[in-house]
Amino acid sequence: MLYSPAQLQEKLNLLIKHYCYPSNVPGLYKPASYIMSLAGKRLRPCLLLMGRNLFTNDLDEAMPLALAVEFFHNFTLMHDDIMDNAPLRRGETTVHEKWNNNTAILTGDAMMVEAYSLICSATAPNKAMILDVFNTMARHVCEGQQLDMEFETRNVVQLNEYLEMIRLKTAVLLGAALQIGALSAHAKDDTASLLYSFGLDMGLAFQLKDDLLDVYGTEEKFGKQLGGDILANKKTWLLLNALDRANDADKQEIGFLVSSMTLNPREKIGRMTTVYDRLGIRECTEQAIDDYTTRAFESLALIDIEQNRKSFFEELLGTVRTREV
Amino acid sequence: MLYSPAQLQEKLNLLIKHYCYPSNVPGLYKPASYIMSLAGKRLRPCLLLMGRNLFTNDLDEAMPLALAVEFFHNFTLMHDDIMDNAPLRRGETTVHEKWNNNTAILTGDAMMVEAYSLICSATAPNKAMILDVFNTMARHVCEGQQLDMEFETRNVVQLNEYLEMIRLKTAVLLGAALQIGALSAHAKDDTASLLYSFGLDMGLAFQLKDDLLDVYGTEEKFGKQLGGDILANKKTWLLLNALDRANDADKQEIGFLVSSMTLNPREKIGRMTTVYDRLGIRECTEQAIDDYTTRAFESLALIDIEQNRKSFFEELLGTVRTREV
Repeated sequence: MLYSPAQLQEKLNLLIKHYCYPSNVPGLYKPASYIMSLAGKRLRPCLLLMGRNLFTNDLDEAMPLALAVEFFHNFTLMHDDIMDNAPLRRGETTVHEKWNNNTAILTGDAMMVEAYSLICSATAPNKAMILDVFNTMARHVCEGQQLDMEFETRNVVQLNEYLEMIRLKTAVLLGAALQIGALSAHAKDDTASLLYSFGLDMGLAFQLKDDLLDVYGTEEKFGKQLGGDILANKKTWLLLNALDRANDADKQEIGFLVSSMTLNPREKIGRMTTVYDRLGIRECTEQAIDDYTTRAFESLALIDIEQNRKSFFEELLGTVRTREV
Repeated sequence: MLYSPAQLQEKLNLLIKHYCYPSNVPGLYKPASYIMSLAGKRLRPCLLLMGRNLFTNDLDEAMPLALAVEFFHNFTLMHDDIMDNAPLRRGETTVHEKWNNNTAILTGDAMMVEAYSLICSATAPNKAMILDVFNTMARHVCEGQQLDMEFETRNVVQLNEYLEMIRLKTAVLLGAALQIGALSAHAKDDTASLLYSFGLDMGLAFQLKDDLLDVYGTEEKFGKQLGGDILANKKTWLLLNALDRANDADKQEIGFLVSSMTLNPREKIGRMTTVYDRLGIRECTEQAIDDYTTRAFESLALIDIEQNRKSFFEELLGTVRTREV
């Protein structure tokens, strides 16, 4: 059968809820169980299972692989939260706040090991290729996080550098999850690569939409205060595009808004949004999102499988474009 | 040919010196190259190559595996140094001091990924089994570090708990390195397991000797000030044994020495050593080291290979017992 993302999410939540951690050193595994239990969308393991489900109705062999990408993702969240000094994750206290930095470092390490152990324990075919895809993805994610940190303290970041950063930090994991799912179902290399491209472009569209919603979302729907990126002077796609298109007067205004320590938050957000409006940033971002989703659709179209098995992929891609949350 | 540990060390140093790190994100890989370049004994990759060399003269296939355990070991050092707040490693500034904590966390993560990539890239046989051994070892090392941290803040630690901690934190990596080397040379499972046991017992003997040298070493030979563990109230094999053997008066003296904030360092070390002497701690530690080395010799004796190929193993084990550095 073809599983909907909601059904896969339910399957995954159940599996994660009953996951058996080693019992000998609870101090190491309790924080792992804690972060894994925080309600997330389970997007990455869902994608992995969708990638497999495209080719077979039997998902069993891929379950440890799906868990592996979820463990890996949560390991990166745990370490990123230390680096970003983040107090909250999915509305709950972060591990380094609830326990301490050392625990978050070490439990994160153990979760990465768990991810690899799960892959190695899977009985799926194409294991060597799956490990290669996973290794490359893991390296890229580390590289993306490093670039993200470096950009914070750099004065100038080019648009293509920003795209490369979000490609590495966010998009490759979506692509790799799909590709691994496909490989686990005996999909051909070429086909699995198309799914990787699909995930990559979807991931880029997803991140740009994230940047967009921070400024042009609807507060009630978005669920958090708008303009957070503007207040934090985050070098988002919107800000970098604005700097690219700005004339001297705009540049001066942006420079003032970014450097002023005295402006009240409301005014800072309002004035930056005015600059964005004047420079057509909303439209150009929506255009970029459309371009990436179109490219993702094109990759999907090239996959040689009955059209009806692709329906959930199209749905998912549609929601990236239209989502307001 | 049969390579001596010194020859293997030279081979490894050359390989590490010319290792090609990805060039796209130097901020991530420079700290990796830095810690890998600090002169160490290369004990773990040496053991891996010795494990292989026992069965074949051709070491080539095992070189990426040897590098992998060295990357893994240095990743754990990098993260342990953050957790321990250590300013120096092998006489040089630690990565988190030279750069910062975030860099040490992230570069450490990338080094673990590099270790797995190296294993996966190796053309050696028995890859699935090698990965299993590596995964289990990696999990154990995390568990050992967690126990070590927990022991610092616990009032009571049992001797068998301490042994379990050093087994996980230190010894399993030596055992796994040897076992992986053997597996890479088509050694039978049983034989590879004997080498694992050899490494485990050697590792335990090595750690107990470390504890012993801190108190009973010769300062000029040891190269650092003696009594560091006593001053830090570290729950070493010596202290835990002393507590085990102490009568009420001894217990009171130890309790006073551990808790006093005003004693001068010289006096604290001197008085603790007097307690150790009275309780025969030196002799009982030397006995334990002898017991573990004897067990290691027994495992080695059971390995069905010409005696002359084992010579460097016997030599190495001898130095664990007699080393003064």
